[in-house]
This record gives sequence, C-alpha cells and structure tokens, in this order.
Amino acid sequence: MQLGMIGLGRMGGNIVRRLLRGGHTAVVYDRDPAAVEALVAEGATGAADLAEFVEKLDAPRTAWVMLPAGAITEATVAELGGLMTSDDVIIDGGNSFYKDDIRRAAALRAKGIHYVDVGTSGGVWGIDRGYCMMIGGETVAIDRLDPIFRTLAPGEGSIPRTPGREGRDPRAEQGYIHAGPSGAGHFVKMVHNGIEYGLMQAYAEGFDILKHAASPDLPEAHRFELNIGDIAEVWRRGSVVSSWLLDLTASALAGDENLEGFSGFVADSGEGRWTLNAAIEESVPANVLSAALYARFRSREDASYADKLLSAMRKGFGGHQEPK
Amino acid sequence: MQLGMIGLGRMGGNIVRRLLRGGHTAVVYDRDPAAVEALVAEGATGAADLAEFVEKLDAPRTAWVMLPAGAITEATVAELGGLMTSDDVIIDGGNSFYKDDIRRAAALRAKGIHYVDVGTSGGVWGIDRGYCMMIGGETVAIDRLDPIFRTLAPGEGSIPRTPGREGRDPRAEQGYIHAGPSGAGHFVKMVHNGIEYGLMQAYAEGFDILKHAASPDLPEAHRFELNIGDIAEVWRRGSVVSSWLLDLTASALAGDENLEGFSGFVADSGEGRWTLNAAIEESVPANVLSAALYARFRSREDASYADKLLSAMRKGFGGHQEPK
Amino acid sequence: MQLGMIGLGRMGGNIVRRLLRGGHTAVVYDRDPAAVEALVAEGATGAADLAEFVEKLDAPRTAWVMLPAGAITEATVAELGGLMTSDDVIIDGGNSFYKDDIRRAAALRAKGIHYVDVGTSGGVWGIDRGYCMMIGGETVAIDRLDPIFRTLAPGEGSIPRTPGREGRDPRAEQGYIHAGPSGAGHFVKMVHNGIEYGLMQAYAEGFDILKHAASPDLPEAHRFELNIGDIAEVWRRGSVVSSWLLDLTASALAGDENLEGFSGFVADSGEGRWTLNAAIEESVPANVLSAALYARFRSREDASYADKLLSAMRKGFGGHQEPK
Amino acid sequence: MQLGMIGLGRMGGNIVRRLLRGGHTAVVYDRDPAAVEALVAEGATGAADLAEFVEKLDAPRTAWVMLPAGAITEATVAELGGLMTSDDVIIDGGNSFYKDDIRRAAALRAKGIHYVDVGTSGGVWGIDRGYCMMIGGETVAIDRLDPIFRTLAPGEGSIPRTPGREGRDPRAEQGYIHAGPSGAGHFVKMVHNGIEYGLMQAYAEGFDILKHAASPDLPEAHRFELNIGDIAEVWRRGSVVSSWLLDLTASALAGDENLEGFSGFVADSGEGRWTLNAAIEESVPANVLSAALYARFRSREDASYADKLLSAMRKGFGGHQEPK
Repeated sequence: MQLGMIGLGRMGGNIVRRLLRGGHTAVVYDRDPAAVEALVAEGATGAADLAEFVEKLDAPRTAWVMLPAGAITEATVAELGGLMTSDDVIIDGGNSFYKDDIRRAAALRAKGIHYVDVGTSGGVWGIDRGYCMMIGGETVAIDRLDPIFRTLAPGEGSIPRTPGREGRDPRAEQGYIHAGPSGAGHFVKMVHNGIEYGLMQAYAEGFDILKHAASPDLPEAHRFELNIGDIAEVWRRGSVVSSWLLDLTASALAGDENLEGFSGFVADSGEGRWTLNAAIEESVPANVLSAALYARFRSREDASYADKLLSAMRKGFGGHQEPK
Repeated sequence: MQLGMIGLGRMGGNIVRRLLRGGHTAVVYDRDPAAVEALVAEGATGAADLAEFVEKLDAPRTAWVMLPAGAITEATVAELGGLMTSDDVIIDGGNSFYKDDIRRAAALRAKGIHYVDVGTSGGVWGIDRGYCMMIGGETVAIDRLDPIFRTLAPGEGSIPRTPGREGRDPRAEQGYIHAGPSGAGHFVKMVHNGIEYGLMQAYAEGFDILKHAASPDLPEAHRFELNIGDIAEVWRRGSVVSSWLLDLTASALAGDENLEGFSGFVADSGEGRWTLNAAIEESVPANVLSAALYARFRSREDASYADKLLSAMRKGFGGHQEPK
Repeated sequence: MQLGMIGLGRMGGNIVRRLLRGGHTAVVYDRDPAAVEALVAEGATGAADLAEFVEKLDAPRTAWVMLPAGAITEATVAELGGLMTSDDVIIDGGNSFYKDDIRRAAALRAKGIHYVDVGTSGGVWGIDRGYCMMIGGETVAIDRLDPIFRTLAPGEGSIPRTPGREGRDPRAEQGYIHAGPSGAGHFVKMVHNGIEYGLMQAYAEGFDILKHAASPDLPEAHRFELNIGDIAEVWRRGSVVSSWLLDLTASALAGDENLEGFSGFVADSGEGRWTLNAAIEESVPANVLSAALYARFRSREDASYADKLLSAMRKGFGGHQEPK
Repeated sequence: MQLGMIGLGRMGGNIVRRLLRGGHTAVVYDRDPAAVEALVAEGATGAADLAEFVEKLDAPRTAWVMLPAGAITEATVAELGGLMTSDDVIIDGGNSFYKDDIRRAAALRAKGIHYVDVGTSGGVWGIDRGYCMMIGGETVAIDRLDPIFRTLAPGEGSIPRTPGREGRDPRAEQGYIHAGPSGAGHFVKMVHNGIEYGLMQAYAEGFDILKHAASPDLPEAHRFELNIGDIAEVWRRGSVVSSWLLDLTASALAGDENLEGFSGFVADSGEGRWTLNAAIEESVPANVLSAALYARFRSREDASYADKLLSAMRKGFGGHQEPK
C-alpha cells in the first residue's frame, strides 16, 4: 500500500523505512532535500514540494504528517487540506494537542477529507521493535489504512497473550488500536506520556533513596554503600517493578553508575502538561503525575523564587540566617 | 543442599516446592500441622516444633524464617538463636524492617551465628517465575547458600542481557544479589516496594483520567468513551510504559473493565511507609512515592476529618453550604 | 459618586450597601425584582432591565457586573457593551478567568469603553470588614473610580503598617491595588485563591494528624487525646501559624470539635484549577497548591477508579484480597 | 515566682527577660559565662555550673532547659535528674521529639521528679509579643507553674475572642494550653511546625506563580509584570489569606521584591520530618505537608541524582540529549 510522509526526521524517516521493509511504497517530502534523497536511495519516491508530493500520490491519497506539534503541523495540515480532495486521508502522527485534532478534523470533514490522529510510542527503537499506535478518527479511513498500521505495529511478538481477551479487538494485541473519534488517538497517547513521567519519577525517587543510603548524615550503623547498577539489573528478573523503563535504567547504570555525564536538567514535551490539564478538567486527583512534571520544572531552576521566599519568611520570624 | 523452612504459608511453602523441584532437600515447620503434612507429602521432612526442626538439620544448619514481619518473626529468630550454634545460618526472608536486621545480626554474631536478610519479590508467581532476591549479610554465609539462591532465582530467562555489564557480578543477571551487610537486603527490597507503589499509582491515575474522559462535566465535543482494556493491552507492545504491572492491569481489565468487583479499599504492607521514613532521614524529596502511599491511606477513609475541616472553613468565610 | 450594580446576590448587594453607607449613590438591577426592591428600600435607585439601568446612570457611566463567572457574565458584558458609549466603564467584579478579561477588554476598547476587572476577597464579612480588591485595567478608569474603591476597601484599620513601604503605592495599605492591565486583577485574585486552598489544606492535614493522635493503631504509650478546639485557639495568639483562616477554624471547632455537621464533600470554585493551569504554563512547580485541589476532588468520590485499579493490581501480583 | 533557666541563647535569654519584667525571679546558667553575666546585669542570679544552679533554686525547684534538641538536652536532663529531688520540676522548652519526652518523664517519675515539655512558638518576637505555649505533663506541676506560663504567654491582646468558647479552658485564650500528658506539648508543637511549613510553601508557590506571570515563555498578550510587594501588602487587609506569615512576607518584599539577598537554600529543623513520621504512623494522608518539606530538601541540592536518572532514561528511549 502507498503512504505519503511529510517530515523525515528520526521518527518520520524510520516509519518510512519500516514500511518499505514491509513491502509498502512511499512518497516522501521534507524541507531538507538531503533527507528526501536519503530515503529515495532506500526506495522511496521523493517530492520537491507539497504540491508535487500530493500529485505523486495515488487517489485516494494518504499523507502522514510527522512534524513537531504546533505551528508547523498546523500550517502543513492546512496547506494539505487545500491540495487534497474528497476521500483523501491526512494523518497527524506527531504529538498534537487533541483539541487541535478535533478542530482540524471538523474543518477537513467539510471538504470530505478524513483526518486521522496517531499517537505513537516507541522512540528510536520503533524501527526494529515496532511502533505502538493509538489512533483516532473515522472507521472508514482507519480500516482502509490497516495494512500500514499492521506493518508499523510491533505485532504479538514474544509477549504472552493476556488471558480473557478472547473476542476482543485483536488489533490491541498487535500493538495498535482505534481508540475513538478524532482526537482520541492523541488523547490516549497524551495520558500514556503522563503515566510515563510518573513511572520515571517513581524509579528516580527510589534510586535516589538507594543512592543516599550512604549519606554521612545517617548514623554509621544504618548506612549502606549500594551497587545501584546491580540493583537495577536484579529487578529486571522476577520482580514486581520490572519494565522497559527499568531495562533502560539498568543499561544506563551499567555504563556509569554515578551518571556523571548528565547535568540533571530534564525537559518535558507538552503531553505531561496536557495530561494534568485534562485531569483538572475532569476533577481527577493526580498527585503522582503532577509531582513528576513539577520535578522536571524544578530540575531546570537554580535557586527558585519560591525557595528564596521561604528563606525570607524564616528570617522574618526566627532570625534564621541562611547557611553560607 | 538442605534448607530448613519455618512458616509454610503461600510464600514459604512455594519456596520449598521450588527447592524440592530443583533437587534440594528441606526440613519444614509450621504452627499448623496440616501445612507441614502437605509438604511432607511433596517430599519434605516435617518437624513438630522448633527444637525438632533444628535437630533434623545437618550442621552447619540453615533455617529460613518466612513469617509475618514483627513480633512473631522477632520471637522465632530469638528462639532459633537459642537452639542453633556457631556457623549456623538464620535467614529472615520476610518483610522485616532493616534496622531490626542490623540489631538481630549483631546479637547473633556474638554467638557465631550468621544472620542473612533476604528481600524477595515475585508474589504468588514466584514458584514458576522464580523469586527476585535482595540479600544482606556476611559473604561467607551468602556464598555458602549460593545453590539455594540460584535455584530460587528466576535465572536469565528470555530477558535480553543488559549491554555493558561484562565483568560485573553475574548473580544480578540471574535475579539475585548480595546487596551488602546485614539489613541491606531488606533495605533494597523496601525501596523496591516504595517504587512499586509509585508505579502502581502512576498507572492508576492515568487510567482514571482515561476513564473520566467520558465525564458529563466535560464539553460534549471533548468527551471520549474509551476502551480501557484495549488501551492497557496495546501499551504492552512497543510502548514506553510496558511493564509487568501493566501486564497485570491488562489482565484485570480484560476480565472486568469497570472493576466492579473491587471496593477500592487499598491496603499497604509497611515497606512503603519505611521507604518514606528513609527518604525523610536522608533528606531525599519523594513526592511521588509519598503521594502513592497517601492515596492508599485516603482510599480507606469515608469522610476525612481534614475534608470536614475544609468545609467548616469554607462555611466560615464564605457562607458556603455543603451540597446535599 | 454614582455606581451601577448588576447582580444583587450576597456579594453585589453588600457592595451596594457598603457604598450607600459611605455616601455614594447606586443604580441597581437584578433579574429578581425582589432583590432590586430590597435595595431600593435602602436608598438605591432601581431599574427594571439593562436598558433602563444604563439610562439611569449619569455619563460617564460605571456599571459593576457581579454575576457568576461564565456564560451569564459574558452575555451581560456583551449586552452592556451595546448599550454603553465611549468613556463609560464596565467592571467585572466576579471571578472571571483572566484570559476572558483580556479578550473582552480588547473588544470594548474598540468602542472606547473601559473594562475593569476586580478580584474581590472578603466573602460574607466584606460588608463590615471591607473588601480586599485586586484591580486590572486602564489607569484613567481606575483613577476615576478611586472614591468607590476607597470606600469598599477595608482601610488601614488596626493592622500595623509594614516597615519599609514609605514611598510605595499607598493604596495597598488601604486594601486595594491597581495590579496591572486588563486581566491582572483577576489573575492576582486567582492566585490568591490558589494560595487559599493551599493554606486551608495545610491546616486540614495538621488538624487531621492531631485528631488521629488518639488512633488505636498507635502504641498505647504514644497516643494522645487532644483538645483540637483549644489547640486552634491557642495558636491564634503569638504563634507562627496565626491567620484569619485559623480564626475561622477556631470558631468552627468551638461549636463542634468533631465537625459532625459536615459531610466532608468539598467544592472548588475554578480559581484553584486556573492557578494550576497558570503554574503549568509558566513551568512553576506547585506541589502544594495541586495537592490542595486534588484533596477536594478526592473528597467528592466514594470509591475511585484509581483505587480499584490498585486493588486489581495487588490481586494480580500477590493474590491479595481486599478486606471485607 | 522563681524559675531556673539553663541555656541563655536567643530563646532562653528572652524568656528570662520577659519573666523578670513580669516580676518573677530567675537563676540562670549557660556554658558561656558571658551569657550568664549579661542576665545577671539585668537582675537574674547567676550560677557557674549545674550543681550551683540547682543549689541556688528554692525547693520545690523548677529548672527550664532551653537547649538544642538531641544529645545536649538529653545529657542535661539526665544530669539534672541526678541533682534534683522529689517534687522538683524539669521543663524541656526546646524542640525535643515527643517520644523522648515520654521516655524521660517515665524515668524521672520513678524519682518523683516532674517532667514538663513545653513547645513554644513565637521566635525572636516572643519577648514582646509573648510566647504561644503548648504544654505536656502532670497537672499538679503545670498548675503550680501557672504564674510563669501566664507571664510568658501573649495574653488576650487585641485579638477578638472566638464566639462559643464560654466555659472552655480560659488558658487557650491567653496563649497557652495544657495539651495532655508528657509529650503532648511537643507533639502539638511539632504539628504546629508541620503546618507552618505547609503554609509557607503555599505562599511561596503562589508568589512564584505571580513572579513568573512575566515569563517570556508565555504569549505576550497573557503576560503580567506584577508588583509582588504591593500584592503581599494588599492581601494583609480584608483577604482570606491574611496571616502573620503574610505580614512577614510583605515586610521582606518591601525591602527587596526580588529577594536578591537570599540564596534559596532552605533549612528544616526536624519537626516537619517528625510530623510526617507521625502522619505515616497514623495513616493520615499529608500531601501538602510532605511537599512542603520536600521542597526544602530539594532547595539544598544542585543537580539531583533523581533528575540525572530521568535524563538517562530519556536518552535511553528517545535519544534525547540534554540541552547544553
């Protein structure tokens, strides 16, 4: 089956590669001609601009937009909307905000164009491991694209089947789902990332406690010098906390248990924030997911105004001076 | 190799079974004679009381105590200490507090008895999946018991090896480690459980947000009726949040997506509390692990005094009445 | 000076009363004619609809809208915008979202109408104690209305002056400020309420800990039966935690130390949520303010889906049954 | 009435001064002879060592120990216990852990010596404003010392009486209470400090959000340059968040709105930690009080191991590099 891909960065490029390997064909476009050339060398058809891109696609067309969420995705979808025609499909595979999907889908529906939002997880490992996909949009479009999704998905692999799923949607066991109408794909992916932040922070706090078990502030008899890397490794087998994130942690710690190469400045990509906004809108308590996001905010500050204010109050009531 | 086991509940009994299957021999004791009989039928040697239990063990003896943490473990270890002799080993495989281990080990060391604390993870699945073990104590005793630990551990299994671990302690890849001196095993297991609580709460909050995406409080255009079970399933393959806890979640949701069978009263077993105590002692921020524990506390209250006080204040300043 | 008031509920009505007492005049309107009549009896001029209301005001007119935030305020401001003319002032004294203020002010500015947003704190006590006001909008309008604000504000009262404020805006010491351009008044009021939630929750948790000091789960030697009401009272004098909220708490506890009259269902009014949205937008860590809001969310649930999921996972890995 | 004071630091010295002003007499001792001399010059009787100190007191003696909690208080109470006799009173006015009080009181009771724990709040302001006192111990001793406590307490002052307290213990309105048996005084003071941390952090987060309203990361139309000092001041009058801590905040911000003089390194004094330990023991959720303490822990770290681990995981799954 043919797919058009716009945006040939790490994610877009590898998705095309996985499709080509799976016997599909691809028309590709990127602002950077070198990126186009690279994929042409691997068997894709290149395009020099969006108009040519659309022209080279067979109707009904499928254009997958894999660009940073925000202005550039918005503009590209709008431009594609002008170039494409009824029954074509535009996929937004980036990390767009789900309310933007809902709005865009309604606008394109007026022209008969299908809009499909695909949240993808898998990162740099996806090309080999497959991409876990959460898909929102109309059934007709998503069913038509099933061969694409099936190829991109990880498949059942060596992961044991969940008992009791007989008769349920088999796509979930292949690693992709039709989550609901437009926006549902990115909504589910958004919450996925919110959970991801929470899981990461749970490990981070736990390993921090293990690391500080050697703290000189503790009574000597209660101190432990622990081998953090071996602990991460041992938990990978048979423990309740085993996970892919733990695998990655064990791998990082095998290289450098003290993580000297990292400054501890931790970015966040938007989905964690939107997940909290959703929790707040829904009146759902989310202390863990919030704390996980706030830890990242805090990691990016040196001396926060909040902390200075605490010091100022302490000086006010107790005459406490800050330590030198 | 021979092991003595005291406490033949779900954990102790299955550990003996796994050892018997692995070619070891066992002397077993439990207050409940039926539990002893059951294991005798499977090939173990039974004892009617602790004295007989110790007598039936070959020197140097190894007695594994697998009882609820607290008074009963304390009393049993003390009694064993009186019955056993120099170079014998007492293992506490329960969930004891690590400071109790440190104290007990020092007391037994005076008699020449080795005290080994083993934190085990794996729950009811351990008999087949193996037990992940974190072990504290003297090297001489732990090395002597290696055949036991090797049999109980999950082994390398199908889990890919972590790159960069060449030259490191190979036991971690088998699923057990010698974490450090007395108490270190239970300390690491304690933090393991603290992390476990955090991971569980991250999933719980995320799925709660997914569930409430259909809330009638949201604007209709932004609502989603999501298939929670399929979402849990799809994340098992290729996603960043895949884990054993997610496998269990998918399994529970396959049975009943609305979890009607659960009241939402969530117990905690002590290690989560001790983990926070350790974090506080070490001055390590642990917002996620704390929030996870507090969510369990809160799940067990109907109308908290704290909440009533908020209502009382609201009435005081704003004349706000509580809704009927 | 003359003020028009739309919305004669508890807040709007009392603001008019305080103005009349202070020698000002008022034109008043409410959908409920009885509310209008009541204030006419106290010396205000009544109006039967918005058109008559605007007609009875002397140019340049000032119309204070004191209605629930949301659709009704939006519609009323829009209708007033159609009836009023250049140099008139519309005040939104409710709890509007600051981004709505910014939008409305821009729309009205095109017609030469000034839009002023006033965040007011003081609740039912304001009529006697005065209203603390945070004001956003153009200087020309806010300066013109100064006699109104001065009368409504608490004034310096018996509160000691803050040293070092010489040469700073004297209005702050009277209990009102011009916080900035349109939206700034409601923004500051919004954060005020966010802080209010945090303060309330800090007291609530603390008193909860005092209450549970008698818990039968504690060792008997470490239990205390504390007189919660006396504790609240004693902290009012000379302690670091004295505050107006504590005064209200002491008052509530003097009546009923066990707060039997409250169900513990705690509402929230929007500003706490917006405060978190602002924190998230600004990348400011806000664990305390978030936890305070989430505690209210949680107070309104019986058995949360999140908690049920924790139980389901526990059953999955440990065979733990929920307690009956 | 006569009081003996051991420890003439800021707190102990000022307590003696307030007592002398109130017509009481004092015997004083400090390791630093200059501190003793200073108070002798103000009318106290000095002592060169503990033995002389006890000798100079009239039976039944009262010795107030005002030293840092921990080893030095422990040793001093023990030494006093050896020097004093039946019916004498030892007061620990420091910030001792309440379980230490319970233990010490039991030990001294065997000798007939009364042990009284006094938690005091008021800081450097207490000499003039009075000390808020929470007192634990036997009624007979606390009643005997009432003239001392009455003089030290703030008294009713200008603070309005709480309605509905008729018939309740009048001491609470004077600023001191007999909270319960030994330990109760320090327990209540401990929770007081836990609440204090929570209140401070609520303000700190709120003001941080106000400060960052000018963040260049926000859309320009939604940014505000707020006058933080004026906001703190205006909230002191008529607002729901007025408090003594807010008074101190306004005072600090009047001097330097940007708090340039503070590094943001925030100490904690032990009671916040113990409050959390108590909450955990009692199964009381305490997200706000925990977050307040953790914010202080975090303020004292530069690049936390937890944050580095997050970066390491992010690199693992997404190839994300940390920003330079």
